[in-house]
Amino acid sequence: MDQVMKKQPILTFENDGFRETEDLVATEAALTVHVNGEEFATMVCTPAHLEDMVIGFLASEGLIRLPADIDSLSVDKSKGFAYVTLKNKKISSADFGTKRVIGSCCGKSRQFYFHNDMKTAKTITTSLTVTPEQCIGLMKKMQEGSSDFQKTGGLHNTALCSADEVLVSRSDIGRHNALDKIYGHGLVNRIGMKDKIIAFSGRISSEVLLKVSKIGCGILLSKSAPTSLAIELAEDLGITAIGFVRGSRFNVYAHHERVKQD
Amino acid sequence: MDQVMKKQPILTFENDGFRETEDLVATEAALTVHVNGEEFATMVCTPAHLEDMVIGFLASEGLIRLPADIDSLSVDKSKGFAYVTLKNKKISSADFGTKRVIGSCCGKSRQFYFHNDMKTAKTITTSLTVTPEQCIGLMKKMQEGSSDFQKTGGLHNTALCSADEVLVSRSDIGRHNALDKIYGHGLVNRIGMKDKIIAFSGRISSEVLLKVSKIGCGILLSKSAPTSLAIELAEDLGITAIGFVRGSRFNVYAHHERVKQD
Repeated sequence: MDQVMKKQPILTFENDGFRETEDLVATEAALTVHVNGEEFATMVCTPAHLEDMVIGFLASEGLIRLPADIDSLSVDKSKGFAYVTLKNKKISSADFGTKRVIGSCCGKSRQFYFHNDMKTAKTITTSLTVTPEQCIGLMKKMQEGSSDFQKTGGLHNTALCSADEVLVSRSDIGRHNALDKIYGHGLVNRIGMKDKIIAFSGRISSEVLLKVSKIGCGILLSKSAPTSLAIELAEDLGITAIGFVRGSRFNVYAHHERVKQD
Repeated sequence: MDQVMKKQPILTFENDGFRETEDLVATEAALTVHVNGEEFATMVCTPAHLEDMVIGFLASEGLIRLPADIDSLSVDKSKGFAYVTLKNKKISSADFGTKRVIGSCCGKSRQFYFHNDMKTAKTITTSLTVTPEQCIGLMKKMQEGSSDFQKTGGLHNTALCSADEVLVSRSDIGRHNALDKIYGHGLVNRIGMKDKIIAFSGRISSEVLLKVSKIGCGILLSKSAPTSLAIELAEDLGITAIGFVRGSRFNVYAHHERVKQD
């Protein structure tokens, strides 16, 4: 089985008749992450770039800050397990839940709902700016490079970009997984994020916006729509949120000061 | 603020220039569900039809089988909390986690990853059949009815249908929430599901397929692509999975015996 997609016999209805054919479908598999000997979480994902995904996920959840905080990491892809031991053996995954923040005012945003976000989301300060042509060009380059989506119609794409180029792109059936893969790749390769841009194929939900803040990028481009909560978080966390980048147009929903015509 | 969408000032780039305008964006808010006095889960969702969503979610997670298992349910929409007491006061939400099923063979499918799915997913037996014209017609009716999606571009739509009509439709920024709202509506109104069809705007992931099995429908129509795992689950759970219903064509990925030309 391919890591990203597999062939599937199907029955197609077209021109008023059925015919048997084959389709390429996106592969979906579970990866259960054990941390310091305890089951931490199961992610249902596209089984590629799993080490990066685990590192990005652990950083996103606040269990690590850097890959150097990890003592060992092994992935058993065939069974769908990842085993992580941290340098700090006292860290128990039971301490990292998804408990709601009640009535908090943490100095970053009043819109946080989860404790782990309060710990790991960052307010972005960057002098990076982009031109409209760069926004439009990056989205076009990301889409042209995403042949897996074109083949299966079932994957989210995320690209880490400089102002002019796509540096690395990752796809996953889960939007947050694609972002964790980028996050892990950046941490492992010590990529500075202040002058980088994230281009994303899916909608901008609060979850997506928070991941971009954790990754540390100040500009987010999306082909699709943002939600109200994502816009509030973008305002508070200093992220330029750009949606509906289609053809030669787009909308800026927050921090438009970073988008400047030449 | 509207339950489903709100107006947002934006900067649009179009025809080589910026202009200030307004956009309608989908509302996103958190609802934290307390069960028998304990925090159970926080759902980030579209704040409408919340009672139905909570009931569908609790049934989906296996805490209740029917609304009659609930002693009281109140929703504080402004603060984003739902308080549920069950008839059975001994049920603790701590017993309902997302622990992975290891090496299970539960007689339903070898593709389950979570204990709660193993308990609540159902194998569907139904003599319901549909014609290609009915599949195409139902998807068209669901899309014509989904004006909120058309306005915001940010919502998933789910419709519960008979073979010829959309009976009820719900939208949400989260695909699983839209399905939980349909599930809860069906349970509260005691709607028999054996002769019903689910039409869905998003991709068919394993999560979506499992929800449809829990709701008890044997036919699922989607505008988009399925994943490999969703197809395996559909095969095992007896669900006719139909994807890419667009214009006058579609693909049948599992259990095509329920799709018959007149």
